[in-house]
Amino acid sequence: MPSYQAPVRDMRFVINELLELSSHADLPGFESVSPDLVDTLVEEAGKFTSEVLAPLNATGDREGCTRHADGSVTTPAGFKEAYARFREAGWGSISMPAEYGGQGLPHPFAFVVEEFVDSANIGFGLFPFLAVGAVAAIYAAGTEEQKQTYLPRMISGEWLGTMNLTEPHCGTDLGLIRTKAEPLDDGSYAISGTKIFISSGEHDLTENIIHLVLAKTPGAPEGTKGISLFLVPKVLVNADGSLGERNAVSCGSLEEKMGLHGSATCVMNYDGAKGWMVGEENKGLAAMFVMMNAARLGVGIQGLGLAEVAYQNAVAYARERRQGRALTGPAEPDEKADPIIVHPDVRRMLMDAKALTEGLRALALWSGLLVELSHKAKTEEERRAADDLVGLLTPVVKGYTTERAFEITVNMQQVFGGHGYIREWGMEQFVRDARIPMIYEGTNGVQAMDLCGRKLPKHGGRAVQAFFKLVDGEVAAAMDDPQLGDLAARLGKAVGEQKAATMWFLQNAMTNPNNLGAGAFHYMNIMGIVAVGLMWLRMARIAAAKLAEGADDKAFYEAKLTTARYFAERMMPDAGALRRKIEGGAEAMMALPPELFERS
Amino acid sequence: MPSYQAPVRDMRFVINELLELSSHADLPGFESVSPDLVDTLVEEAGKFTSEVLAPLNATGDREGCTRHADGSVTTPAGFKEAYARFREAGWGSISMPAEYGGQGLPHPFAFVVEEFVDSANIGFGLFPFLAVGAVAAIYAAGTEEQKQTYLPRMISGEWLGTMNLTEPHCGTDLGLIRTKAEPLDDGSYAISGTKIFISSGEHDLTENIIHLVLAKTPGAPEGTKGISLFLVPKVLVNADGSLGERNAVSCGSLEEKMGLHGSATCVMNYDGAKGWMVGEENKGLAAMFVMMNAARLGVGIQGLGLAEVAYQNAVAYARERRQGRALTGPAEPDEKADPIIVHPDVRRMLMDAKALTEGLRALALWSGLLVELSHKAKTEEERRAADDLVGLLTPVVKGYTTERAFEITVNMQQVFGGHGYIREWGMEQFVRDARIPMIYEGTNGVQAMDLCGRKLPKHGGRAVQAFFKLVDGEVAAAMDDPQLGDLAARLGKAVGEQKAATMWFLQNAMTNPNNLGAGAFHYMNIMGIVAVGLMWLRMARIAAAKLAEGADDKAFYEAKLTTARYFAERMMPDAGALRRKIEGGAEAMMALPPELFERS
Repeated sequence: MPSYQAPVRDMRFVINELLELSSHADLPGFESVSPDLVDTLVEEAGKFTSEVLAPLNATGDREGCTRHADGSVTTPAGFKEAYARFREAGWGSISMPAEYGGQGLPHPFAFVVEEFVDSANIGFGLFPFLAVGAVAAIYAAGTEEQKQTYLPRMISGEWLGTMNLTEPHCGTDLGLIRTKAEPLDDGSYAISGTKIFISSGEHDLTENIIHLVLAKTPGAPEGTKGISLFLVPKVLVNADGSLGERNAVSCGSLEEKMGLHGSATCVMNYDGAKGWMVGEENKGLAAMFVMMNAARLGVGIQGLGLAEVAYQNAVAYARERRQGRALTGPAEPDEKADPIIVHPDVRRMLMDAKALTEGLRALALWSGLLVELSHKAKTEEERRAADDLVGLLTPVVKGYTTERAFEITVNMQQVFGGHGYIREWGMEQFVRDARIPMIYEGTNGVQAMDLCGRKLPKHGGRAVQAFFKLVDGEVAAAMDDPQLGDLAARLGKAVGEQKAATMWFLQNAMTNPNNLGAGAFHYMNIMGIVAVGLMWLRMARIAAAKLAEGADDKAFYEAKLTTARYFAERMMPDAGALRRKIEGGAEAMMALPPELFERS
Repeated sequence: MPSYQAPVRDMRFVINELLELSSHADLPGFESVSPDLVDTLVEEAGKFTSEVLAPLNATGDREGCTRHADGSVTTPAGFKEAYARFREAGWGSISMPAEYGGQGLPHPFAFVVEEFVDSANIGFGLFPFLAVGAVAAIYAAGTEEQKQTYLPRMISGEWLGTMNLTEPHCGTDLGLIRTKAEPLDDGSYAISGTKIFISSGEHDLTENIIHLVLAKTPGAPEGTKGISLFLVPKVLVNADGSLGERNAVSCGSLEEKMGLHGSATCVMNYDGAKGWMVGEENKGLAAMFVMMNAARLGVGIQGLGLAEVAYQNAVAYARERRQGRALTGPAEPDEKADPIIVHPDVRRMLMDAKALTEGLRALALWSGLLVELSHKAKTEEERRAADDLVGLLTPVVKGYTTERAFEITVNMQQVFGGHGYIREWGMEQFVRDARIPMIYEGTNGVQAMDLCGRKLPKHGGRAVQAFFKLVDGEVAAAMDDPQLGDLAARLGKAVGEQKAATMWFLQNAMTNPNNLGAGAFHYMNIMGIVAVGLMWLRMARIAAAKLAEGADDKAFYEAKLTTARYFAERMMPDAGALRRKIEGGAEAMMALPPELFERS
């Protein structure tokens, strides 16, 4: 059975040394952030997730959730107790607004907990983390009464929440939704329709579940301009706050999935359920996007968490399993064979995973810091710059991370050879679980179009130009450094590929927008390489400085330098190939009439 | 539920137009090969697999195989009847030796059937196809008595066969095996030990199962030089050919796997089972390699088959499912949304799959022809050239095909969005099933080392030099053709990357063999790109000629030209990035001491 140990040292490195969170102590919410707080939180979260949640991961996958004849759903054995402990420890409310009972800590802290939970037990994690988006939407768009009624109990974890977007005939294209909201005399609405793929739609962890539901009011405009957002509690809340009648919403069935069996993915039936509009009529999609953006970063972190736990188990196996001999001669001549970590191809997979998990972790947490700065930085200019950057990075953190994370879980399974395919080793569960983050909260193709079709051209390319300036500046500053120069030069080359691809879009997408669509996915991956490359340049700079000043933990910093070099030499070359693919354009891609794809 | 239609037209194109099998009619076994025979065989195999086997694929996955208390194993509902029909139609004996009752047709025909079966139901396919390797080994190394006793009934499908290599502590490194073979007075051996991951080790499809088992005789040399091969029937065969006593071999348990549930993957216990040596003592590994080489091409075809069926279902879904609008304006303005095949990113995934499945099919069948020519070509020189080439291509067909095939199944699942993750759509089964071909019959890392460590340097690089000469010649011949020139130029560039990588190995692997190991996997993929590129150049040449001569089926040939262009523009650029990764060398990859991979 797989094991999990939270990467506490690396997390401390990212928060204290790379992001230097405590240096922002003059911003709201950062006041109490000290390296000591970081250490405590990271240690405790690591302990909780590895001791309480990880042991329920394989069993949760095996058992799954169960729907009963009355529509109720029970979670796998142990989840309920684990959730009670999770709630009690406050792990779900780290970055939630203090005014409604949250801890109000900066987002990177919530991301730490999310990564650890997703590594330990992603099926469990979906129950509390879906509520994060629901809270964000109510907080951003709800009335004061809605906030008072729902937020304190959602933030305390007494109640959980869901997002209801998808219907059987529409997911990406929400303009097609059919769920109806009929206004009632009391100002509420009667919601009717079927929603599918609803994570945590029904379960036994909390007494109440607060559903946020997209629906159309009578006579609403066609398409996405006619969608409103509604709050639909599973159990109605009386004026005194006590629980009242059961609402007309129920779980019609559980989806049978490839993985993520610990999570209850529900078909939800709304049969005239009582709901209240959140935000303005026909502006539901905008309110929902508040949830989506937060959720998208979170989905990137899900991928990261699964890659990390898969990596750890592959390392353990590669150090233990003996097969064959090192190409350079026996590494352990007294044994009948060497541990497989001596084989370069095993190393390749482990180093790819190490370089990416550490780089993607830095990127995700930096994005979390940018979310904070976009709201809280001192000047309007700084806030705008952070907002631009996080807008650009969000589809990359979601799309690039989950693509690479899935590959990592597959490679880590490969390290196990045939044993990787056998359930009891647990590696195949990581692969099955890591498949879904590429799909939900907007498929990675949708992320790529968000990046290239919306974020790139926005404000005349302001965000991406700022990103280029940032990278160029750090490259230039490191270019003459003997330890960083090569890495900087390679990053300069990679960002050059991204600039060339951007220019190519500029020159070719106006005449034919398919040229943009045909290259968007590859562009997202180039930008992922550049963004992670930037993280590695920063991490290498810190490591070199620490080594120069004679820091303890020399081996840790030396490993950072080696891993940075590996990323530059072994992973950055893809940027050039991706640019050339983009320059292939849409012509051959779009030329065939659909019927010629059919076999005969 | 997924459907499957055999790609009959494309298969006829490959056999009749690309390989021109009937042009070899002067070689043994090719006498009866005519375009008519090809059409009939392809049509009938297509019909059988889509009508009889495909409907049992999802149910076979759900139900799996069952082991009973007495050690017997039953296959999923319908498999037994389907096998009877499979056997009756002779689908298992296409290319088996005519002297023992096989049909003696050239290997490409067997590959056609294998691809179709693997598309329709790979779990079923493993039962008959494992026997192919066992037959090959007995045919190559067995005594005349062994051949007479076992081959006719294995070839007729009355009995099936297995390969027993892996043990709990060793797979790749067979030198470590512990299974013992004690000589008995009658010339037979008592075999004792445990083998794992044995496909079709026990089942209810046939009365007898012929196990080929690697074991060590007393006092045998250490390592791979002390391994012998034994034939161990499940039921002993009396002198008159009737079945006698049950042998002391049994299935201890079935492995629970990520996929391939229709196949019985057994732990086999040998408790002094009676066996007979096949071939010479301590030369078992060589005899086993006869099986392995055939099996490796077959595993490549498994990947191809799964990619093909996943592709077909994604095409159907992409033409049916409506979401959003074409970037160039509504394609079907009367509908509320366009079919998703209008979206470039969906096209990208479909075109990748189309270009690869068609290219990999050509490559696999060409390799099958080379297997024939290596035995049957008229001159020693031709036979040697074919043998060199197929030796070089075998790890590429196994490794590159299964890598790309898995990616294709993942992308085809992605086309379905969230529905791809749901079991009832069947796409996730293709992904789970396509994962194992990357692992078994030698992991793809082992294939890469076979290619770079053994096949490249053999005879002073004779094979790869011949391959370069072949590609260069076809590139040069097409360079000035207005329709083929760009494709040829791009293939020339890709083979240039392979040459540069080969040269880099030559210059850097002697001083440090890890430089070879660190680049081997990427080299395998470069060679895959070049080999498939060569197939596309040939296919494009034929298509252009057919169009020029005004052939019917114009659309088919035009699609070939477009797809060739797509492969060149969109997939070949990876060769350059892979070469640069190889040139990164082993230093950063091998630098970290193993303990620094651990998290703390």
